[in-house]
Amino acid sequence: MDLHRFAENPLITPAQVAASQPDFEAIGTFNAGAALYRDEVILLVRVAERPLARSADDVLYPALNESGALTVRAIRHDDPRYDVRDPRIIRDLHTGAVFLTSMSHLRLARSTDGIHFAIESRPFLTPQIPYEAFGVEDARITLIDGTYWINYSAVSPLGIATGLVSTRDFVQIERHGIILPPANRDVVLFPEKIGGRYWCYHRPMPAYIGDYNIWVAESPDLLHWGNHRVLLRVEADGWEAGRVGGGAPPIRTPEGWLSIYHAADVQDRYCLGAFLTALDDPARIIARSKTPILEPDAPYEAAGFYPNVVFTCGAVVRDEMLTIYYGGADFCIAAASVPIAELVEGLFRGDA
Amino acid sequence: MDLHRFAENPLITPAQVAASQPDFEAIGTFNAGAALYRDEVILLVRVAERPLARSADDVLYPALNESGALTVRAIRHDDPRYDVRDPRIIRDLHTGAVFLTSMSHLRLARSTDGIHFAIESRPFLTPQIPYEAFGVEDARITLIDGTYWINYSAVSPLGIATGLVSTRDFVQIERHGIILPPANRDVVLFPEKIGGRYWCYHRPMPAYIGDYNIWVAESPDLLHWGNHRVLLRVEADGWEAGRVGGGAPPIRTPEGWLSIYHAADVQDRYCLGAFLTALDDPARIIARSKTPILEPDAPYEAAGFYPNVVFTCGAVVRDEMLTIYYGGADFCIAAASVPIAELVEGLFRGDA
Repeated sequence: MDLHRFAENPLITPAQVAASQPDFEAIGTFNAGAALYRDEVILLVRVAERPLARSADDVLYPALNESGALTVRAIRHDDPRYDVRDPRIIRDLHTGAVFLTSMSHLRLARSTDGIHFAIESRPFLTPQIPYEAFGVEDARITLIDGTYWINYSAVSPLGIATGLVSTRDFVQIERHGIILPPANRDVVLFPEKIGGRYWCYHRPMPAYIGDYNIWVAESPDLLHWGNHRVLLRVEADGWEAGRVGGGAPPIRTPEGWLSIYHAADVQDRYCLGAFLTALDDPARIIARSKTPILEPDAPYEAAGFYPNVVFTCGAVVRDEMLTIYYGGADFCIAAASVPIAELVEGLFRGDA
Repeated sequence: MDLHRFAENPLITPAQVAASQPDFEAIGTFNAGAALYRDEVILLVRVAERPLARSADDVLYPALNESGALTVRAIRHDDPRYDVRDPRIIRDLHTGAVFLTSMSHLRLARSTDGIHFAIESRPFLTPQIPYEAFGVEDARITLIDGTYWINYSAVSPLGIATGLVSTRDFVQIERHGIILPPANRDVVLFPEKIGGRYWCYHRPMPAYIGDYNIWVAESPDLLHWGNHRVLLRVEADGWEAGRVGGGAPPIRTPEGWLSIYHAADVQDRYCLGAFLTALDDPARIIARSKTPILEPDAPYEAAGFYPNVVFTCGAVVRDEMLTIYYGGADFCIAAASVPIAELVEGLFRGDA
């Protein structure tokens, strides 16, 4: 059971994207939600942007202010009150508060062949509410009864929460607020009701005690969630020892719900795995990959903004072929495909 | 506006409590949920117990094993693989995993005068499910239409989650699972529907980014929660700079919903505060204490298992008098009272 990387990888890089703001530049195009809409593959690309620095002495960070306006603040690189060694964040050494040096929004890209994408010049979803003051990230798209439900990470000084919007045409967007409080991300919604309820997998990030495991929850309406139970836990060692989290929204197959998920080891090397859950019970795992179905090997996976990462937010099925769109090294978008029946058989045989 | 500590404080100490297990001892009786039931004040006391050590060289930690059985494991005090400097926890230096050196359960105590309590010899609620492998803590009791709903912290290697049970008679208990995933505690339920929905305040513990703020959420059924919004945030400095969290379940007054909450400063000194929210909108604060309504001053608040803590999980109103039951220094239970109208007036006047 092998996934085949597209020869055209990477499919999308930051160089193809116009910045959304004057004096900003796109530094990452990755972790895209995916869906089929009419005859096209739709990607909702996470575009990470940073303000252009006017001086090498400054470290800049963008955020919405209390009025909801985008502001850019600067601190001196050598300001002893801050830790700026990790280029992705600024840490206030007194309060412990973390700021991000980039801000993400969601951008629509369209393709008929699933390989060559036309990227819209304007954002699809930008940070607007206080819960998004540091950005909106990592969309997942789930089609339920003609409506596309899009959940995403809403990042702000209030924490990393999960927001929900919906659209029927990828033009008009309806907002539905915060469906899971911080710290929680990597939420995937099921495309249909099971046993009269909606279902999701989610990935709490516990503080103090607890690992980064995948949980399952149920809902009467997609907005209120309960009956939280742990589903898939980190392993003591190996490629799943650091964290696991939902990837692409579950896909119905004759044998069960197919989930593509991510797992990182304790060195933060991110791979993709797969598992199947019972068609009538998304809380019951019936098969699970023993080894990664995709590891960060290609140059665009091994090196980038954050090296050694393959991370998916979406996959599509056309002509019995599963195509997984994934972020490479928090920098670019790539894709890999496999006949879906072959992947499912491999999970049952235990050779994946 | 002054709270009057009971002259009989502390009302309950560990010496009054029989251990639930052979070779265990109670080391803390604190953070009790409170309710009126028939003519009595009911407290659901958090009883923290630890295994009796057979050797001074050992550090013991109790937990449910995979089969749900209570086990006690020991590590050597000088084992270099573990950090045991904080007597409350053991930290595995390789994995970062945290274990607790004590385990809590919930114990019923009854009183007609609200001062002298008879403590039951057996637990009311003990750890039983994997989410409770390290204990059940900090009950809140809310009476809704004849049923007492009891939420509590379910602590385990899976994180600190919020569980829910209900009872009509404090004998038969019905379990309702996990209503908020980790890390979340200090949940308080409203005693009635408002605008056709149930309401709660909850306190996520965000990892990586985010403060320990109080949030509000809504539910159709007490089991599924959504529309999460931040309600009351930590302050930049002072007695509320470290964390805030729900205390006693909200109490209806003519002027608004009265909430007694806890706040800690950056030195982890825990005080009590109060705020009022609109009767028709629990998400709208209409008055808030500027200074603590109770600070850890008394000997049983200043010294104990964890010093300088007053922390409440419940209060009752009888004859227009509000009695707040609270934990002192994570060791004992004490109480303080104030005419409820006086407290509410003080919040509006701004002298509390």
